[in-house]
Amino acid sequence: MTERPGTASEIVVSVDAMGGDRGPVAVVGGMAKSAAVNPGIRFLLHGDAAVLEPMLRKRPALAALTELRPASGMVAMDERPSHALRHARGTSMWNSIDAVARGEAQVAVSCGNTGALMAIASLRLRRAEGISRPAIAVLWPSRNAAGHNIVLDVGADVRADAASLVQFAIMGAEYARLGLGLERPRVGLLNVGIEEHKGNSDRQEAHHRLNALAGAPDARFVYRGFVEGGDITGNSVDVIVTDGFTGNIALKTAEGTAKLIGEFLSEAFRATPLARIAALFAYGSLRRLKKRIDPRRVNGGVFLGLNGAVVKSHGSADATGVAAALKLAFRMGKAGFAGKLAARVASGQPAQNGTLGHPAGLGKGA
Amino acid sequence: MTERPGTASEIVVSVDAMGGDRGPVAVVGGMAKSAAVNPGIRFLLHGDAAVLEPMLRKRPALAALTELRPASGMVAMDERPSHALRHARGTSMWNSIDAVARGEAQVAVSCGNTGALMAIASLRLRRAEGISRPAIAVLWPSRNAAGHNIVLDVGADVRADAASLVQFAIMGAEYARLGLGLERPRVGLLNVGIEEHKGNSDRQEAHHRLNALAGAPDARFVYRGFVEGGDITGNSVDVIVTDGFTGNIALKTAEGTAKLIGEFLSEAFRATPLARIAALFAYGSLRRLKKRIDPRRVNGGVFLGLNGAVVKSHGSADATGVAAALKLAFRMGKAGFAGKLAARVASGQPAQNGTLGHPAGLGKGA
Repeated sequence: MTERPGTASEIVVSVDAMGGDRGPVAVVGGMAKSAAVNPGIRFLLHGDAAVLEPMLRKRPALAALTELRPASGMVAMDERPSHALRHARGTSMWNSIDAVARGEAQVAVSCGNTGALMAIASLRLRRAEGISRPAIAVLWPSRNAAGHNIVLDVGADVRADAASLVQFAIMGAEYARLGLGLERPRVGLLNVGIEEHKGNSDRQEAHHRLNALAGAPDARFVYRGFVEGGDITGNSVDVIVTDGFTGNIALKTAEGTAKLIGEFLSEAFRATPLARIAALFAYGSLRRLKKRIDPRRVNGGVFLGLNGAVVKSHGSADATGVAAALKLAFRMGKAGFAGKLAARVASGQPAQNGTLGHPAGLGKGA
Repeated sequence: MTERPGTASEIVVSVDAMGGDRGPVAVVGGMAKSAAVNPGIRFLLHGDAAVLEPMLRKRPALAALTELRPASGMVAMDERPSHALRHARGTSMWNSIDAVARGEAQVAVSCGNTGALMAIASLRLRRAEGISRPAIAVLWPSRNAAGHNIVLDVGADVRADAASLVQFAIMGAEYARLGLGLERPRVGLLNVGIEEHKGNSDRQEAHHRLNALAGAPDARFVYRGFVEGGDITGNSVDVIVTDGFTGNIALKTAEGTAKLIGEFLSEAFRATPLARIAALFAYGSLRRLKKRIDPRRVNGGVFLGLNGAVVKSHGSADATGVAAALKLAFRMGKAGFAGKLAARVASGQPAQNGTLGHPAGLGKGA
């Protein structure tokens, strides 16, 4: 294709083809799935042309929506962010972010090295006004009416001081307003107990500041105080705030637990002849359940606090996982999410209308 | 009963009847379940005699195995540990630990305030030789042959410096040798990535020290380096070491995830008439699955690093959960676990034989 994508109602997603544990096969596979169900999506695809061109040739429908942008290098999954920053220029990851910085795409997606992606995004897109530390937010399956809670930070930074935790609460609440369509999201601060005296001094201070903030007459969120790990999947709050270290460990622990139970479930239905018959009878219900607890279907960490939208897909994502991340990116692009969030955090003005489409669908499936 | 319990092959468990969210009903209910399946178990029961006496009268079989020790006060679930330490003398929690310190019981069990229990246990039982910080270890359902991994610390202390993390590794490995019957347990240090540069300086330093320790020719464990949240349920390591803050959050997040999926599962089998028929066919398999993912069935945090055995049951445990904690306590008492662990950590001598009975059964069910 020759024309520049992104005109009129089209949303251009800038995709890093080379990141992730499964490489370009998963990424291009996910793009094909995504192209089939998200009308108006277009792609800038950054990576090794010798690898990507044959893949696109086999998928003419996808190729028609995609502009291949050859990039010679790539950022390794185990590279230190500081090293990547110095050497990443010209890599597929750098270029995928760069296209957003230049206004050629509305949103970037990468399955690559999270630390490097955040470092590059922070450098090229810069922090939004008033934000001292960006965060990565994820949608988490929960008992809430919307079907998800929002958890942040899940890995932008291993540390978070009191001021950062307060900013995460504000950004998370804005994401919940836009992403889940909630008027006054309920925010909780993750801790090892709900009692006032629990946790370290940063949590204590953030707790007091959030109580004060949420007590203001024009408060844009409700502060519910300390919450525990079990509340992440519950319906007592909509937004769970924590530092990137605990958030990352909680996220991966939950994914591991869901995977283990999924395996136990499959075993249970192979255990006896009766169970195998039952599995046939319950086929539809079990398939829906499997989808519901499949971590791949809620894939995509959103970088909050930058002047531009970036979605970090899980490094081990397969085509289904990548498609979920692309869907989230597409919806964010359509909603002009990053700009709205930055403006709102900066101004503290009341929300405008408009959410990221149907809340329950956000970030789910292809 | 008049005779002093704990003679010959009997194991005396000292039980705090008043702790926990559900109070004495759950505790005494759990004792009744436990008494029925653990021959040789006897109880010292500490708490409000006016409440407990009628309960025991209704259960003559249990009453015959139980010595009621009236205690006037109790430690509240939200009490600060420092406050509890000053005011706990004579409470049911204090007395339950005190009986172990006096040698009247082999092991104490409480569903109460974790911080207060640890503070009282540290004061009355004292830290074992060479231990700077005790830890709480739990058995975690996993893909391992033994059916469980061991995770510590899950909440004894919100902080852990490098030296403490190294001690947790040593204690966790000893617990795995005794509790899971593993000759050379594989130990991993929980982090936000497996790459060498990840995590804070304490993890970095602990990582280097553990590499050195495990490299010795007489090493009693294998060190597998950094692991992630997903490895807690996996089979790449047997022991996962972390600080009490992240350990507690991971534990509660996993419990919440298991609970949510269990609810989804029940819904799936009520969704359609066919699914309801299937549920009948798969009744046995589903029941076993439900048991397998039921967090109550693996209940009991073991305090490691003290001169005496203490099992902390989940605060929200019902009778089934309390029974699981009592079973774990019974097996620990039988194995003389606390003394052996203290001796081994202090001496660094090779292990003697003997494990806590059948590995896969440890801590499971009533």
